[in-house]
Amino acid sequence: MAVDMQLIGEQAKTAALNLRRFTTAQKNAALYTIADALETHSERILQANALDLDDARTNGLSAAMLDRLSLVGRLPSIAADMRHVATLPDPVGVEFDARVLENGLRIRRRRVPLGVLGVIYEARPNVTVDVVALALKTSNAVILRGGSETLRSNVALADIIEETLDAIDFPPFVVQLIRDSDRQYVRDLLRLDEYVDMIIPRGGATLHKFCRENSTVPVITGGIGICHLYVDRTADLNKAVEVIYNAKVQRPSVCNALDTILVQRDIAADLVPRVIDRLAQANVCFKVDEEAAKFADGKPNVEPAGPGDWDTEWLSLILGVHVVSGLDEALEHINEHSTDHSDGILSTDPTAIERFLSEVDSAAVYANASTRFTDGSQFGLGAEIAVSTQKLHARGPMGLEELTSYKWIVEGDGHVRA
Amino acid sequence: MAVDMQLIGEQAKTAALNLRRFTTAQKNAALYTIADALETHSERILQANALDLDDARTNGLSAAMLDRLSLVGRLPSIAADMRHVATLPDPVGVEFDARVLENGLRIRRRRVPLGVLGVIYEARPNVTVDVVALALKTSNAVILRGGSETLRSNVALADIIEETLDAIDFPPFVVQLIRDSDRQYVRDLLRLDEYVDMIIPRGGATLHKFCRENSTVPVITGGIGICHLYVDRTADLNKAVEVIYNAKVQRPSVCNALDTILVQRDIAADLVPRVIDRLAQANVCFKVDEEAAKFADGKPNVEPAGPGDWDTEWLSLILGVHVVSGLDEALEHINEHSTDHSDGILSTDPTAIERFLSEVDSAAVYANASTRFTDGSQFGLGAEIAVSTQKLHARGPMGLEELTSYKWIVEGDGHVRA
Repeated sequence: MAVDMQLIGEQAKTAALNLRRFTTAQKNAALYTIADALETHSERILQANALDLDDARTNGLSAAMLDRLSLVGRLPSIAADMRHVATLPDPVGVEFDARVLENGLRIRRRRVPLGVLGVIYEARPNVTVDVVALALKTSNAVILRGGSETLRSNVALADIIEETLDAIDFPPFVVQLIRDSDRQYVRDLLRLDEYVDMIIPRGGATLHKFCRENSTVPVITGGIGICHLYVDRTADLNKAVEVIYNAKVQRPSVCNALDTILVQRDIAADLVPRVIDRLAQANVCFKVDEEAAKFADGKPNVEPAGPGDWDTEWLSLILGVHVVSGLDEALEHINEHSTDHSDGILSTDPTAIERFLSEVDSAAVYANASTRFTDGSQFGLGAEIAVSTQKLHARGPMGLEELTSYKWIVEGDGHVRA
Repeated sequence: MAVDMQLIGEQAKTAALNLRRFTTAQKNAALYTIADALETHSERILQANALDLDDARTNGLSAAMLDRLSLVGRLPSIAADMRHVATLPDPVGVEFDARVLENGLRIRRRRVPLGVLGVIYEARPNVTVDVVALALKTSNAVILRGGSETLRSNVALADIIEETLDAIDFPPFVVQLIRDSDRQYVRDLLRLDEYVDMIIPRGGATLHKFCRENSTVPVITGGIGICHLYVDRTADLNKAVEVIYNAKVQRPSVCNALDTILVQRDIAADLVPRVIDRLAQANVCFKVDEEAAKFADGKPNVEPAGPGDWDTEWLSLILGVHVVSGLDEALEHINEHSTDHSDGILSTDPTAIERFLSEVDSAAVYANASTRFTDGSQFGLGAEIAVSTQKLHARGPMGLEELTSYKWIVEGDGHVRA
């Protein structure tokens, strides 16, 4: 089926204008109603999902991939997440920086929706629902482009969302799914700058690069994390081992999981074997530099680090181990290899900690904590649409406020400029 | 001379990292020292500027253009502007949103420089100095690309700035000017996403479009203003005439100057002739729709509005006059023709005012004031690098804070995620 992307853009822009008239109470009611509908129509959704899963099995997708595609048993928690968004404060309409200028002009800023979001994602169909919740809550229209493996699941979800919004008299086209897997439509979406205000890619480095290079709409890039922990000679090594264990093992497939530890030379003989022994309990494999290798002698799952290893986001149970002379070399290594996502220092030296926090140019910088905390709900934002590693607009976890802009409101009494 | 843009990018990134160690006091001292140097070396600058002016005359550039190129008599105020930036508060390092999470993690956000700015501008050489002041104050390195007509003036200014920074031991390459007019280097600059964090185009619609379509670096677009004032039937017409006069006449060549007035039908017979008579005193010409024409009978400098006139940013003493049935038609016209810069309502009806302020989707929305106030210093930001009409990152006048990002700082005591 051919998709008229120009028309989708126009419809989204009109929908966004109409959506502005809806109050917080109306938006929250819509979220509750959609959440209920997802549960009421769960059979219809799971039937579509079963077809996607059948194809995925036929095409030999991995068990991990099948798990990401599957909605079996997950609709109640997806609906619960949507209801949770309804309970969060609405950033739209909040006013700030109000003041009266010397000439008597009254000026303030008011939070407004961005307008139209374009979200491009892969595999997991629950993203469809998550994004709709955050977009509706912030009065943004949204154009969704999911992965081809879950097209039928996404169509079922989008149908139910559209039907529900229609039944409660929300404007048409507030939520539009691109119902065709042709990659050309991604390219078209990225050129709709007349209608779309922000593109959010959710996927791997290739998708982010493609968006950055082909978009005339502002793109939020992020979600790629080569994360480091530097352990200096003053660190509490018992705590250090557990923080490293958590950062690597607790959920290795996500962007804030640890990739490389940098160990200060004086403690390497003590720390490296302890880290290897502890993480081996979770079947972690190690890529070690020559110096670290000396302290890993005879241990299983240890191999020499290759040339590209410091620049690899592992997303699995692999950990790079690199011995450094001290803070300067650690900072140099991080500035060269980090993707500016989450990096930390384990230390009890306040001077070293402050230098690390200042000089590492990442979205989240840590002292004595696991990098796994970089997350919208962990940081208290209530929800998360993406983790930005760029510096414009928003950095780190993006919640509801990051889906808004602001306008300047100026009120006078016939004021003219001198 | 061939320019190695890759090298310029690398150098800028290194300079930006090194610049972080400089304190507010050091940065302010640098601004004062550069301001002094610009005055001390004014003869050298004016000699270079004279060569640019000679060429401009030879090439038959307009008097208005020559005026924009000329630095004659202007260096003292350019230096004074730089000293003024030194007096403004430094946003870098300011911390906000500090809190302790339930698990005891201490989290806060700290303002940090963006890193490397790329600024692409036309004609006016004073922009070179303005941009350097704002970049240095916010600890950003900057790559400058000025117009070909002022290359020699810009080289002289950049030389003096570089020499001064070198003499006071600032890092090299904090300020780099692309010393070649070949347009290829603009294209190259727009692809330096590995090194450059933000592109700011300062120029016409063509430049903005070119940047948006060719950049892999985030671009701030703006500076194009098709600005409207809607006069409703409740407006104080004496004040309305003076606000319209000011918005159109006070400085017609800038982006926040008025382009079109929308007049509510009931007051058109009264207001239209008064506007025409008052603005004719300043030699304004009028493009009027059929209905407005009835009230302009026999008046000089009035002609029928053509099809593209509502979509033209006049930047000169021309005003469109369009009669509308009421607020709905005014909102529709503005949503179709505005560039989302500055639009206002003249009214004494609070309901109409609030609807206008809510439903017009522009960076600055006005009630009963001239659109000419959309400006960083007028709005109390102290300075302005650009006026954004996009919704990401910053909207409306951009001051020092808008040249920063933030990082999340998380401190624990061996915290791990459950």
